[in-house]
Amino acid sequence: MTMSVVEHEANLSLIYREANYRPGRSWRTWLIGRPLATADAAHQAIGKFVGLAVFSSDAMSSVAYGPQELMLVLAAAGAAGLNYAVPLAIGIVALLTILTLSYEQTIHAYPGGGGAYIVARDNLGELPAQIAGAALLTDYILTVAVSISSGVAQITSAFPHLYAYRVEIAVVLVVLIMTINLRGVKESGAIFAAPTYFFLGMAFLTVIVGLARYLTGNLGMVPNPPELELMHGAQGLTLFLLLRAFASGTTSLTGVEAISNGIPAFREPRSRNAGRTLIWMSFILGSLLLGITFLAHQTGAVPSDSGETVISQLARTAYGTRGAIYLATIVSTTLILIMAANTSFADFPRLSALAAADGFLPRQLTYKGSRLVFSRGIMALAGIAALLIIGFKASVSALIPLYAVGVFLSFTLSQTGMARRWWRAGHLKPGDEVAGHGSTLRYEPGWQTKLVVNAIGAACTLIVMIVFAVTKFSGGAWIIVVLVPTLVLIFFRIHAHYKHLARQLSLEDYGAAPRMRRHRVILPIGGVHRGSLAALSYATALSEDVTAVYVALDPAEAKKVQDRWETWGEGVRLIVLDSPYRLLIEPLLAYIDQIDAQRQSNETITIVVPQFVPKHWWSNALHTQTALTLRTALMFRRGIVITNVPYQVD
Amino acid sequence: MTMSVVEHEANLSLIYREANYRPGRSWRTWLIGRPLATADAAHQAIGKFVGLAVFSSDAMSSVAYGPQELMLVLAAAGAAGLNYAVPLAIGIVALLTILTLSYEQTIHAYPGGGGAYIVARDNLGELPAQIAGAALLTDYILTVAVSISSGVAQITSAFPHLYAYRVEIAVVLVVLIMTINLRGVKESGAIFAAPTYFFLGMAFLTVIVGLARYLTGNLGMVPNPPELELMHGAQGLTLFLLLRAFASGTTSLTGVEAISNGIPAFREPRSRNAGRTLIWMSFILGSLLLGITFLAHQTGAVPSDSGETVISQLARTAYGTRGAIYLATIVSTTLILIMAANTSFADFPRLSALAAADGFLPRQLTYKGSRLVFSRGIMALAGIAALLIIGFKASVSALIPLYAVGVFLSFTLSQTGMARRWWRAGHLKPGDEVAGHGSTLRYEPGWQTKLVVNAIGAACTLIVMIVFAVTKFSGGAWIIVVLVPTLVLIFFRIHAHYKHLARQLSLEDYGAAPRMRRHRVILPIGGVHRGSLAALSYATALSEDVTAVYVALDPAEAKKVQDRWETWGEGVRLIVLDSPYRLLIEPLLAYIDQIDAQRQSNETITIVVPQFVPKHWWSNALHTQTALTLRTALMFRRGIVITNVPYQVD
Repeated sequence: MTMSVVEHEANLSLIYREANYRPGRSWRTWLIGRPLATADAAHQAIGKFVGLAVFSSDAMSSVAYGPQELMLVLAAAGAAGLNYAVPLAIGIVALLTILTLSYEQTIHAYPGGGGAYIVARDNLGELPAQIAGAALLTDYILTVAVSISSGVAQITSAFPHLYAYRVEIAVVLVVLIMTINLRGVKESGAIFAAPTYFFLGMAFLTVIVGLARYLTGNLGMVPNPPELELMHGAQGLTLFLLLRAFASGTTSLTGVEAISNGIPAFREPRSRNAGRTLIWMSFILGSLLLGITFLAHQTGAVPSDSGETVISQLARTAYGTRGAIYLATIVSTTLILIMAANTSFADFPRLSALAAADGFLPRQLTYKGSRLVFSRGIMALAGIAALLIIGFKASVSALIPLYAVGVFLSFTLSQTGMARRWWRAGHLKPGDEVAGHGSTLRYEPGWQTKLVVNAIGAACTLIVMIVFAVTKFSGGAWIIVVLVPTLVLIFFRIHAHYKHLARQLSLEDYGAAPRMRRHRVILPIGGVHRGSLAALSYATALSEDVTAVYVALDPAEAKKVQDRWETWGEGVRLIVLDSPYRLLIEPLLAYIDQIDAQRQSNETITIVVPQFVPKHWWSNALHTQTALTLRTALMFRRGIVITNVPYQVD
Repeated sequence: MTMSVVEHEANLSLIYREANYRPGRSWRTWLIGRPLATADAAHQAIGKFVGLAVFSSDAMSSVAYGPQELMLVLAAAGAAGLNYAVPLAIGIVALLTILTLSYEQTIHAYPGGGGAYIVARDNLGELPAQIAGAALLTDYILTVAVSISSGVAQITSAFPHLYAYRVEIAVVLVVLIMTINLRGVKESGAIFAAPTYFFLGMAFLTVIVGLARYLTGNLGMVPNPPELELMHGAQGLTLFLLLRAFASGTTSLTGVEAISNGIPAFREPRSRNAGRTLIWMSFILGSLLLGITFLAHQTGAVPSDSGETVISQLARTAYGTRGAIYLATIVSTTLILIMAANTSFADFPRLSALAAADGFLPRQLTYKGSRLVFSRGIMALAGIAALLIIGFKASVSALIPLYAVGVFLSFTLSQTGMARRWWRAGHLKPGDEVAGHGSTLRYEPGWQTKLVVNAIGAACTLIVMIVFAVTKFSGGAWIIVVLVPTLVLIFFRIHAHYKHLARQLSLEDYGAAPRMRRHRVILPIGGVHRGSLAALSYATALSEDVTAVYVALDPAEAKKVQDRWETWGEGVRLIVLDSPYRLLIEPLLAYIDQIDAQRQSNETITIVVPQFVPKHWWSNALHTQTALTLRTALMFRRGIVITNVPYQVD
């Protein structure tokens, strides 16, 4: 009314930079740190040293339970079974080598982050990508549950009377790690670097001391080992048993893919830094795996689920004491296990944000919180993992069968995708380029070798996955076999919803917004007073077609309202709804329904609701919240606009 | 736009009788019965027979704990103390007689319901009335807690192993009585008549059999009485002890005022019916009180808080057996005690509705539910009483000290008010009339006698109240001494709020509603699509001064929105708010604050919020509820109108 069309257009492209708003200090600031501006994002990148700590704690820590779970299966066949521990460990390290070579190629091909999800999407299509996504997300959750449970098992090895509180301790730890991660990746990297290197130091020390004493012939056996508990009763030494043991042992390989997902967190040159970090990690992991399995076998360590851990038995045998150095080993193992969960906290939110950006998960997951991390993903992960821990009573052996099917499924899809990529690259002319989702495809010299490497990787991981799914099926792997397809189905339904919505809201083939021809205004009043008259004045400014509505609980009161309206109602018609059952909202809704049914096309109905705004919050209790109830009831009605006109008392 | 002013006026007085709306069947219908229309109210009145049951169960049932609590105090002074039981009981019956005479006069003077609240209001003023109200409401709550706890004590006398579950049983019973009362007074009257008369029959039978055996000399002593437990250790027989015992005994008189509060529930002639019912009730109560105390003393019954009740000991001594007739006595006593709480459920909601109508309690309490009862008052009473029972672990002796101070305070105020009334009536000229709150004041022949009766009543109840407050102060009466003034303070604050509000909303000295001079419309958009364009079309129909606002989390996205707005925005200016901390709501609120600060008088600001309405409830999880959050944040802003324009997808 005061601004001309020319002024409008002059203002059209104005960028309004908000200078007034500064985030306040609150309990959230105290807990997770001051908010970070979007422009600060680049400073959050990490180097190889911190990168190894952030992305490898999952893989590294699995030496604490991998060999033990392997031996636990073999122990069912007695000493003859346990003799296979070292050969099986060598097989696992061979698999690790293949995986590392495969993933090193992936990292260079996908410098923007090359997790199984992206690689499958780029090379295999939408369905394999969503299968990989579902498998990985499931696996990240299980990583948190397994590592935390195993960390708590270390604690209860040293302090057996804490065994009764293992679930509570585990849940508290999950919440703690969640909070650390909500502060942001760089700070959590610093927090995690020290314990990771502490663990590596102690683990190598234990292995080296053990080997030295073995070579000098004075290592001896574990004194007072825990009693042998058989998971499935005494069994013969069958191929099935060996395969199951191998499958249990491969849980040590989970986490190898973490770096390929996390490339964007690395400092430039990202691919190079990430690749080097991967090779270092695999080398360390392989040595520890072999060393620990060999020494455990030599010292006759007894695998146990609820008793002392193999690591604990090994450390006290190697050091020949339960002194400070033994305790340091246990403490460092506990720390790495607890913090292994951190790898999932780095990857789960990133992957879910990726899938959400593609429209397969709720969009809210793409939202970066005040500390530039995907805070909703972090909280979702913590919540689900805590539920799992509670459900499985923090038992590592109960959780292990669920683990690794997902991760090997994603390994297979990723390697298959890479193999297909090299095939396509080999058939391009040099100089041609094909744009993909996360990288550009070019002719690659030596593509045949790369194809073979990834194809072998795909074949091996496929075999391991099948072995795992079959041998652990009844033990819990069936849950994952059911869950992954279900998740994929849900992802596609979510995708269909967003696609449908986008089509419906699209402005293609959209002429102009339909003009409002008729505007009907309904004004429910609870009496005739300054508040309702203010709403009346607003309503009459909206349209000439205003109807005031009063619900009569008491005929005498209704008569009074009518008389007063005659004086103050400005000639607007008043409809009195008789309410024999003393209900307020229901007759009003029935009336609105009736008006709505008569509505013509291009007619808009607006309900103008006078809303009392009390000065003190407590006075809310002294008023029926009719406006609120009405709004809730009408909120989701199509084509009915609801307007609240507040009136306040000083 | 389509209706002329003439049509408006023709429609002005149209009464629209709602014929379409019929209340549906639901779980509420199943629980509390079909809704009753307001016109059905008259049919709910009750006669003397049902009235005695509804309003006297409180008073009657107190014979089950009054004598016991009296003896419990006396027992501290041994056999010498217990010798005073019968004389003290005679004193209590004398007090009952005075009270009955006083209240009989009140009932006839206040045929519309003459509780202490109304009488004090009419004759003494607002402050005494509110004190009486606070005292009575407190007392009704305590009645529920004490009777239910005492009823449960009867059950645990017969089944001692249920003692551990007494709190749970008591709470379930409270909920049960609440539900019965939510069905409405007539039906609950029918439900309560049978047990009341069953109890009266059994109680008189026990007393008569006991007296007959006493007179024939073969009553004997209680076999195996419970062990004596001293509440305050062994004490000398002091006046203080006797007064405390008397005070404990007077808890039997609570409930005498119930009928005077409930007169409107009686059938016409109300006063006459109510008066007769009162006299009958007092006669029955007095006889039982004396009979039970006398027999308990003769048989050497031992009062006990957590062991067997006096009634139980008396019944098995009188009948000489623990057979069917003993069990019938216990069952009937239990029933009457549990149902005694019903008197409070009849009176508390009525009194609170009365106080609410006067503006001293939240107005919602005046609202009659679908079954024509004050449902909110009923639920409030049940809730608070349940909390009390839980807090005091359902112990009668712990609750007794809180009891009766309130009721005797209200007795005193009521009788003082009546005395003042007769004084005023006596000084009117015959034929003169003075209109009061609940009755009309006329000259009354014989006013002197009536004045003396009520004055004696006032004096006696005042003394008892002081005795009670002093002797039970440290035992718990202090809670009431603190609570009642606090409640009165709260009542007056509520009253001030309503008075202030009425003044502020009053149309006196109100010229005309201020015309809206400028109308500024702000349209927050999350993107440019059919939904936001529908809201834009609505916004431009409201005013020419429309500003669209977009919060930019990502500069690239913001650029896209700006470009699209250039095409589709109909020349409306778009303001882009930069949000460096990736917050959505906060920058918007800061912007609105800024606009609000520049607002001129007579300018209205409307925020038009496009609101996505999903087809399935579950798809809500896939959208950020920005519209909802924004509404909540702005709801209570003065002078800012909020409009939701829904857009829905098929």
